[in-house]
Amino acid sequence: MTVLYDYWRSSTAYRVRIALHLAGIPFETVSVNLLSGAQRSPENLARNPQGLVPTLEIDGLTLTQSLAIVEYLDETRKAGFLPADPVARARVRALSYAVAMEIHPVCNQRVAKFATNESQGAITTETWMRHFIRLGLEGVEGLLKSPATGRFCHGNTPTMADISLVPQGYNARRWGVDLQDFPRISAVLAEAGTHPAFLAAVPVEPAAA
Amino acid sequence: MTVLYDYWRSSTAYRVRIALHLAGIPFETVSVNLLSGAQRSPENLARNPQGLVPTLEIDGLTLTQSLAIVEYLDETRKAGFLPADPVARARVRALSYAVAMEIHPVCNQRVAKFATNESQGAITTETWMRHFIRLGLEGVEGLLKSPATGRFCHGNTPTMADISLVPQGYNARRWGVDLQDFPRISAVLAEAGTHPAFLAAVPVEPAAA
Repeated sequence: MTVLYDYWRSSTAYRVRIALHLAGIPFETVSVNLLSGAQRSPENLARNPQGLVPTLEIDGLTLTQSLAIVEYLDETRKAGFLPADPVARARVRALSYAVAMEIHPVCNQRVAKFATNESQGAITTETWMRHFIRLGLEGVEGLLKSPATGRFCHGNTPTMADISLVPQGYNARRWGVDLQDFPRISAVLAEAGTHPAFLAAVPVEPAAA
Repeated sequence: MTVLYDYWRSSTAYRVRIALHLAGIPFETVSVNLLSGAQRSPENLARNPQGLVPTLEIDGLTLTQSLAIVEYLDETRKAGFLPADPVARARVRALSYAVAMEIHPVCNQRVAKFATNESQGAITTETWMRHFIRLGLEGVEGLLKSPATGRFCHGNTPTMADISLVPQGYNARRWGVDLQDFPRISAVLAEAGTHPAFLAAVPVEPAAA
């Protein structure tokens, strides 16, 4: 059985849920509670030496790092997360990394928390998130426009770029970033918002015990 | 002619220089002075809509995002930056992203600058860099040990993981992070330190005009 160790609000785990649904791979999830520090437990460190989520158990393997998992699923399942042509692949990867390298890591909870704690209140979580999400989305919008292609980030079917962008769109809304300045991003998010695999992966807060 | 738009101290540009030297591709460099804000100039935004370096002009294309460039060079030049086996590829990508997604973006100058400015001095650049470089390298060291393989990050030849790690090692030393707690990382950096392609890519401060 394929098992995803995730946390409902982790956007990197959200990426892997989208990918698994898109590829039609049945999976179970096991929650690693980031709020209680379960990611640093010996059990989680044994499967994920960085002490993070997500981790995916599949094909007898234990895989970490969301985009490495997405590429693995693409290579082993012909999932179509990346186009065939090297030039198109470079564009999809650049779009993916514009989210996964420029925005997400800076807005990671542990980074925002360090900034707010160490600044003794001068920096708030809202200031931090809005500043870097907005700055990063400006760059993504620029990439999406040059050249603009199709209903999704690249063409008319979902790729790794959409798998990266949709969870970031969720976070942007969560932190109150106005997306109307980003028409191409908004159009992609609207398209994904009607797609079954993306809908199946949307974060759902667990019911209280 | 292949042209790399870089800045001598950019570690993402450093990655691309290593890759070009490893692949044996002759190139010219054009400096985009990040200190004077040249990355936000109309000329740079036209080639790099995110307003960043590096940008690579090659094969009549304009490519952005360092690891997308590395993957493109691997796919079009059979450069060996990724192994053939999907499981090994997943490990090399996870190692690369453990640097390129967990450490580097957080230690980007514009992020550190925002943290120091907004905190009104409570956070210093040194505190910021050392905290996140150390935290990130702990994760990388964990991944390198499970399982440990070869003289480089994965096996006995350089891969995308080494292309990512070596510039981070340069930054760690620059900010005074003690690497002796990370024996596997130190061994890889020592190995790369004797390799001609890595040596040819080392940052060199331009002579004053």
